[in-house]
Amino acid sequence: MKNNKVTLLGAGLIGSLMSIYLRRQGLDVKVYDKRPDKRKTPFTEGGRSINMALSTRGWKSLEECGLKDKVLPLAIPMYGRRIHDEHGGTTFAPYGKEDQAIYSISRGGFNQLLAEEAERLGAEFCFDHKAKDTDFRTQEITFETPEGDKVIQSDVIIGADGAYSSLRMSMQKQIRFNYKQEYISHGYKELTIPPTEDGEFAMDPNALHIWPRGKFMLIALPNPDKSFTGTLFLPFEGTKVCFDKIQDAGDLTSVFKAYFEDAYQLMPDLTEEFFRNPTSALINVECYPWVNGQSLLIGDASHAMVPFYGQGMNCGFEDCSILNGLIEKYGTSSWDMVFEKFQKIRKDDTAAICQMAMDNFVEMRDTVADPKFMLRKKIEAKLHELYPKDWVPLYTMVTFTDIPYAEAYAQGKLQESIMDKVMSNPLITENWNKMDYEEIINQLDSAKAV
Amino acid sequence: MKNNKVTLLGAGLIGSLMSIYLRRQGLDVKVYDKRPDKRKTPFTEGGRSINMALSTRGWKSLEECGLKDKVLPLAIPMYGRRIHDEHGGTTFAPYGKEDQAIYSISRGGFNQLLAEEAERLGAEFCFDHKAKDTDFRTQEITFETPEGDKVIQSDVIIGADGAYSSLRMSMQKQIRFNYKQEYISHGYKELTIPPTEDGEFAMDPNALHIWPRGKFMLIALPNPDKSFTGTLFLPFEGTKVCFDKIQDAGDLTSVFKAYFEDAYQLMPDLTEEFFRNPTSALINVECYPWVNGQSLLIGDASHAMVPFYGQGMNCGFEDCSILNGLIEKYGTSSWDMVFEKFQKIRKDDTAAICQMAMDNFVEMRDTVADPKFMLRKKIEAKLHELYPKDWVPLYTMVTFTDIPYAEAYAQGKLQESIMDKVMSNPLITENWNKMDYEEIINQLDSAKAV
Repeated sequence: MKNNKVTLLGAGLIGSLMSIYLRRQGLDVKVYDKRPDKRKTPFTEGGRSINMALSTRGWKSLEECGLKDKVLPLAIPMYGRRIHDEHGGTTFAPYGKEDQAIYSISRGGFNQLLAEEAERLGAEFCFDHKAKDTDFRTQEITFETPEGDKVIQSDVIIGADGAYSSLRMSMQKQIRFNYKQEYISHGYKELTIPPTEDGEFAMDPNALHIWPRGKFMLIALPNPDKSFTGTLFLPFEGTKVCFDKIQDAGDLTSVFKAYFEDAYQLMPDLTEEFFRNPTSALINVECYPWVNGQSLLIGDASHAMVPFYGQGMNCGFEDCSILNGLIEKYGTSSWDMVFEKFQKIRKDDTAAICQMAMDNFVEMRDTVADPKFMLRKKIEAKLHELYPKDWVPLYTMVTFTDIPYAEAYAQGKLQESIMDKVMSNPLITENWNKMDYEEIINQLDSAKAV
Repeated sequence: MKNNKVTLLGAGLIGSLMSIYLRRQGLDVKVYDKRPDKRKTPFTEGGRSINMALSTRGWKSLEECGLKDKVLPLAIPMYGRRIHDEHGGTTFAPYGKEDQAIYSISRGGFNQLLAEEAERLGAEFCFDHKAKDTDFRTQEITFETPEGDKVIQSDVIIGADGAYSSLRMSMQKQIRFNYKQEYISHGYKELTIPPTEDGEFAMDPNALHIWPRGKFMLIALPNPDKSFTGTLFLPFEGTKVCFDKIQDAGDLTSVFKAYFEDAYQLMPDLTEEFFRNPTSALINVECYPWVNGQSLLIGDASHAMVPFYGQGMNCGFEDCSILNGLIEKYGTSSWDMVFEKFQKIRKDDTAAICQMAMDNFVEMRDTVADPKFMLRKKIEAKLHELYPKDWVPLYTMVTFTDIPYAEAYAQGKLQESIMDKVMSNPLITENWNKMDYEEIINQLDSAKAV
């Protein structure tokens, strides 16, 4: 049948899940990826984080594809942040209610599971195919392959080829394509906290560990092999503690002893790993339109965000779910209409989560360590408990619901301004439990009515 | 001598002027351009405006190169805006003092003059060389030429290759390159107002003619052949008057009769031209850094702006002058240091003029027609007359001085907030001439002191 042949660029998490959705609708799907087959060569990829945090939006898409039970065994629930101070003391800050968690999952195994599921459903994967250019008039993609260049013509092209998308690069050369890529001043490096000698987790596995230090931070997420993957976020240059100023083992040790002493004790291979692993940059990408004829960008290709809200993958999975819903509703006779609707629905939401991810960096590295911040979270949790529908903390809306991101963002801004007022009360630390909570909800209601 | 060989990409206005500066310093210069030699084939370029407005910053650079006298005969002074209302009435709003003008000049002849001057000084021009990619490690540029691909190695590369710069595209693929390209909702089309039957200008030649109509506008600049080049700026789509809704001669005539009746009477070839000429888009480009090793972006390649302040070329010429000054001061033994200094000096200034160009669009198409706007300009002119050093209208700072753009912008913002207050006086129309002008200057002084 014409118009039912889809070319997907990118066999990563988003491309693989999208191909599952499309196969479940009975469409012909070919997935091309520039990398060699990950299932044949080990998963080693510089510049991409190993751990993902799967949350409600992601799970919802997996459930739609009947994959929840297959994925659960790979995932470790984290019920909150375990905050490490400079003296080795820790505090636990729950993410939501008691049973609400985000799930640590390794990119490699998860990607493999999704790609295998897609193949089982009949999607065809072609590795070692690097898309060089796409001609939107003819819908022809030129690939660089080990056997030389290859041109493929396709009815429909979906680019799930990530933050450095080749399809987007071709769109960028077209007229009236708005585009922004922005690197933040910080980079990151992945480090390992191995299991203890008796093969156990070296710290509480059901938390996201965080060492917030103002202008920089370390975090650690648990792995099924009982190690943790730590990620160190530092400015590249120009500050007291930055990657540029860590040139040898001595520099490194003194930074870790001064700021991350308890973690340092758990990292026997720190020096070796630090100087072997790459320092990666963090990019935010926004662009519009995402559609050119019958070609569409999804996931990081259209909206790559910094990782500080743990939503990059979840947002990409939600893209797949929403696109799938539109194809179900409108059929495949008019892809450009479906794509047009998709980008209209999704544009503001993805812009909102990109912004929130940027904002959350400041929260994570800085305010998380502030006692007032913990109190603020407590008051918000109490408001949510008393008025579960009226007051939903922003983190909860983003992470544990599928409220559109832009709506969550707007509601979050209202709540933030009310909480700023609440927190400006000099006696708040003593009186927080005796406040007139209904009054606060009334404030929110009248703010919403404006 | 090593390190004195410079490859310039782009033989446009900026590339040609830069090559003149470099030759005057005795450096080896080769200029590559993707286009065929303009001096052999007629200058026809879709998507770029034909008329430029040369102002103080541009003249200053030309003077430094001893070119002022050669350029003057090509240029027509415009002492102000001639504003056309919907009934054919006009008002004249001077740009500055009596003798201050911006100069209409045609791109084609001006570019030819500069390129010939550069060749006369010993710069070598290679046309039909389209830069495809640059390798910053080896400083090798791959060109597409009619004779096949060609690789050239160069000590120093300067990209003056415009808003769609190939050198910038190569930089964009490098890590930590911040980049933004943004199209505005309006496009433009060039149209002609020919000389009258007796061979004269059809309107006053010493003004920039403007038909401001709120969401859209028409402008016209004089040419030495006594024609005017008109530029129609309309939204592409989605409004009552937009390019999308002008599909035939009938649509076109009714728009022109309704909004530009007096111009319409002077445009015998309107229909034919309108449907033959391209509708071009308007882009704003900002990026950073501009330097990679011994490669540098200048002009539109690093900061393409919308044309509404008439500063794109002037700003690019100022780039050339400043870069030339740094080379003079620091020599050519350390190009990366010179380039680093250049981008540090120039970044905020070019960001400021990009912003002002965007802001000025609103002023041109909208407020110019507002009687309060004319009054505002009069009050500012009077302030400038009374306190020539303390109060300089923003337009004057940008157009008739070489005050750094960012400084002009900041000063302009202060003045704007004070003028907002002045204009909010309900009796301002009656009393403007009797105000306490010293009081206004004092306000500015105290605002500056903060």
